[in-house]
Amino acid sequence: MNVVLTWWERRSKSSKALGFVDINLRGIGQVMFQNNPLTGLLFLAAVAWGSYAAGMPQVGIGGLIAVVAASSTAQWLRVDHAGLASGLYGYNGYLVGLALPTFLASSPQLWIYVALGGAVSVVATLATANVFKTWGVAALTAPFVLVAWLLLLASFAFSGVDGSALSYGGKVTPIDPAAANPLHLADFVQGILHSVSQVFLKGDTVSALLFLAGLAVSSLAAAAFALLGALVAVITAHLLGAESELITGGLLGFSPVLTAVALGAVFYRPSPRVLAYAVVGTVFTVIVQGAMNVALTPLAIPTLTAPFVLASWLFLLPRQHFE
Amino acid sequence: MNVVLTWWERRSKSSKALGFVDINLRGIGQVMFQNNPLTGLLFLAAVAWGSYAAGMPQVGIGGLIAVVAASSTAQWLRVDHAGLASGLYGYNGYLVGLALPTFLASSPQLWIYVALGGAVSVVATLATANVFKTWGVAALTAPFVLVAWLLLLASFAFSGVDGSALSYGGKVTPIDPAAANPLHLADFVQGILHSVSQVFLKGDTVSALLFLAGLAVSSLAAAAFALLGALVAVITAHLLGAESELITGGLLGFSPVLTAVALGAVFYRPSPRVLAYAVVGTVFTVIVQGAMNVALTPLAIPTLTAPFVLASWLFLLPRQHFE
Amino acid sequence: MNVVLTWWERRSKSSKALGFVDINLRGIGQVMFQNNPLTGLLFLAAVAWGSYAAGMPQVGIGGLIAVVAASSTAQWLRVDHAGLASGLYGYNGYLVGLALPTFLASSPQLWIYVALGGAVSVVATLATANVFKTWGVAALTAPFVLVAWLLLLASFAFSGVDGSALSYGGKVTPIDPAAANPLHLADFVQGILHSVSQVFLKGDTVSALLFLAGLAVSSLAAAAFALLGALVAVITAHLLGAESELITGGLLGFSPVLTAVALGAVFYRPSPRVLAYAVVGTVFTVIVQGAMNVALTPLAIPTLTAPFVLASWLFLLPRQHFE
Repeated sequence: MNVVLTWWERRSKSSKALGFVDINLRGIGQVMFQNNPLTGLLFLAAVAWGSYAAGMPQVGIGGLIAVVAASSTAQWLRVDHAGLASGLYGYNGYLVGLALPTFLASSPQLWIYVALGGAVSVVATLATANVFKTWGVAALTAPFVLVAWLLLLASFAFSGVDGSALSYGGKVTPIDPAAANPLHLADFVQGILHSVSQVFLKGDTVSALLFLAGLAVSSLAAAAFALLGALVAVITAHLLGAESELITGGLLGFSPVLTAVALGAVFYRPSPRVLAYAVVGTVFTVIVQGAMNVALTPLAIPTLTAPFVLASWLFLLPRQHFE
Repeated sequence: MNVVLTWWERRSKSSKALGFVDINLRGIGQVMFQNNPLTGLLFLAAVAWGSYAAGMPQVGIGGLIAVVAASSTAQWLRVDHAGLASGLYGYNGYLVGLALPTFLASSPQLWIYVALGGAVSVVATLATANVFKTWGVAALTAPFVLVAWLLLLASFAFSGVDGSALSYGGKVTPIDPAAANPLHLADFVQGILHSVSQVFLKGDTVSALLFLAGLAVSSLAAAAFALLGALVAVITAHLLGAESELITGGLLGFSPVLTAVALGAVFYRPSPRVLAYAVVGTVFTVIVQGAMNVALTPLAIPTLTAPFVLASWLFLLPRQHFE
Repeated sequence: MNVVLTWWERRSKSSKALGFVDINLRGIGQVMFQNNPLTGLLFLAAVAWGSYAAGMPQVGIGGLIAVVAASSTAQWLRVDHAGLASGLYGYNGYLVGLALPTFLASSPQLWIYVALGGAVSVVATLATANVFKTWGVAALTAPFVLVAWLLLLASFAFSGVDGSALSYGGKVTPIDPAAANPLHLADFVQGILHSVSQVFLKGDTVSALLFLAGLAVSSLAAAAFALLGALVAVITAHLLGAESELITGGLLGFSPVLTAVALGAVFYRPSPRVLAYAVVGTVFTVIVQGAMNVALTPLAIPTLTAPFVLASWLFLLPRQHFE
């Protein structure tokens, strides 16, 4: 693995074009905090497979357009070189590019939307980072959430972008208890794997394994915490009586997966104390996911990774107590 | 009074167990900004009475479990000793513990919810305090509001926690003018007293008197501003044409009570100028309470003390003009 | 022009009363970032004409009451002299005073609302400025938006203030494509002009020309960017398929006008790079306007200039990349 990476790094430094490819691959890897082009390549393959398998190739294409738009915008805005080279200006754009074609029907305006969303994600990244560096905390995927929410909400106001996969604004009502069924082992396994793949808005087992492989080539700890987060999320959601279809579809687990990786393997130095803290943070993220699903019902937009962002900020802001 | 306090402080310093009791009592007292175990004891009695009288003993028990969970978590997180000893890590947890059983039906998951809410309230306190110390402003009850809102919203998503006392999401429509009746003197008196007791989610006259006693043993100014805030709130709400039942139930007055105490007796040095400023802040808090009641209608959750937090931050952030 | 201004400045310095008039006129001019009493006078005339033409003289009067309340409050709070003298404590109050009588029916409580709103807008200005100076960014019209939103929302809770021009809370549903008609040249011209006048909540061509004149006497660049912003907004909204009536009424263009002036002519030093950045920011503001129109549907309140505030903060926070 290291040989391949060393060879690639030498190649990508010798050519402007390959260097740009490198930045974009690392941007894709940074969706799960990995500054590693091989991780990005495996994530890219996972998304390509998941999009193709779901009959929605435009999702994979949207991601590529947006991440390239983001990287180009970052260069035009003369962002800091270290951040650019490690992909920190790409991951929010990539996620915007996956989210828009997932929820909006194809149209000429959609592709302008995707490119604009990728470009503005960089502005939002600079803005968010500027604010949150005050407290030594990262922007996480907040720029993605903010930009994608605005673009999705606006689709209700513009007839040129059709929110075909968004529902209408609904009423907040309690869950029907009958929706919480007993789960079999196979359901649990599917829920865990799809929780990983839903980080990229995909409910697909093959994709999930590719995502885990992508994590593992860069950081075994990250892969382990992703699985642990998914496991904790699925169990917590089931014990609280969540809707079974959401659990097995991974839709209550993707934010907890990100929280587990962020708290357990990225921002804190591993220790038993951090492990306990990360598990509590992961459990709490499940509750935040449930809460935001409810809160956004009247607005008819998905939470995206907002529950991860909110819960992780909450658990990262007291970081001086873990240093 | 002072003799009792001195004796208790000596005792509580000589024993770890009594010291822990002391921290929790001060935490309860800090709901209204009082670092005083006797205040905490009287507040505890007021809540116990109010819960018992309303036929909901589980509310008082929830408060105790959550404040103990909060204090224990604070110790485990190694928070600053001065803050811990003065109860600053307990009051948000205590309020979470009162709010959850007030709005959710009893179930095994509810008690996990209460303990988790108490624990996470400390994380939220550290996070909020870290952010707001940038501008020299306290976290107030924002951690309570944030954590309790998330847990209550999530109850709509989980069949294991039943939001029996939450309504369904409703439509924003203007108030029926017929709901604003003329008030008699007795209605005003009840509205004033219940405004005080609703700080702890209780509509109860005996409790209100115990809360005022608890304030008075620690700070006569705080007790006076609590009453003044309640008086201003009830009059303002009535002149604006608010629903009479909300006024007499204290439901438009608890946030103004907290604003009045915070601006008039805690964070600013008393002066005629501060008095005028505190009254304007209290009047404005009534409007914020009305606004947030409306804004949360579609989400079917109560404002809790968010109107106090928002209005007081607004009136505390320009504090350099009062120094 | 300069002769008149010099004469006025001499006069206004020699008399306390004229000095107070000067502060209020500059406050009105600061709605579009101009520290110029002549601009304020022309804006005042534009609002007077627009209110009279719409048969709503109370709107013009509300603005005057609120700006005077704001300036008086600012003096009482002993704000910084330079900010006060350049009108920075007046523009939010003026806008609050225009917004409340636009949406609420006349009643004794309305006028208390207007005066209180003007006064509290200063507190909100100090609070917001204190927070945002951390990142070197201005408060913009955030204090106006916050205070007016709260007062408007509360009108649903108080029978003494009647939100006659507010609709009821509605459901989020996609736009009917039939509402997006082809536009004629005259429609475009009207949309552009009304986009300018809607900054002050007026859909009126004469007013628009007076506003542009007011800008031009102070800064030709500001007038040019206002027109450019309106042009970009009207075209963008039409290409995205927005409702034609909103476009021609200027209701999708007023926030983009403010963004264009802020980014193009006020906070950044003009350059081709800044021009491109300002155009992207203006286009994005149209999307934010669409998004917030949707997001506020359940709450039945107007966006006011919140889309400008949000988009401009986003594009101003990365300002170190333009220095």
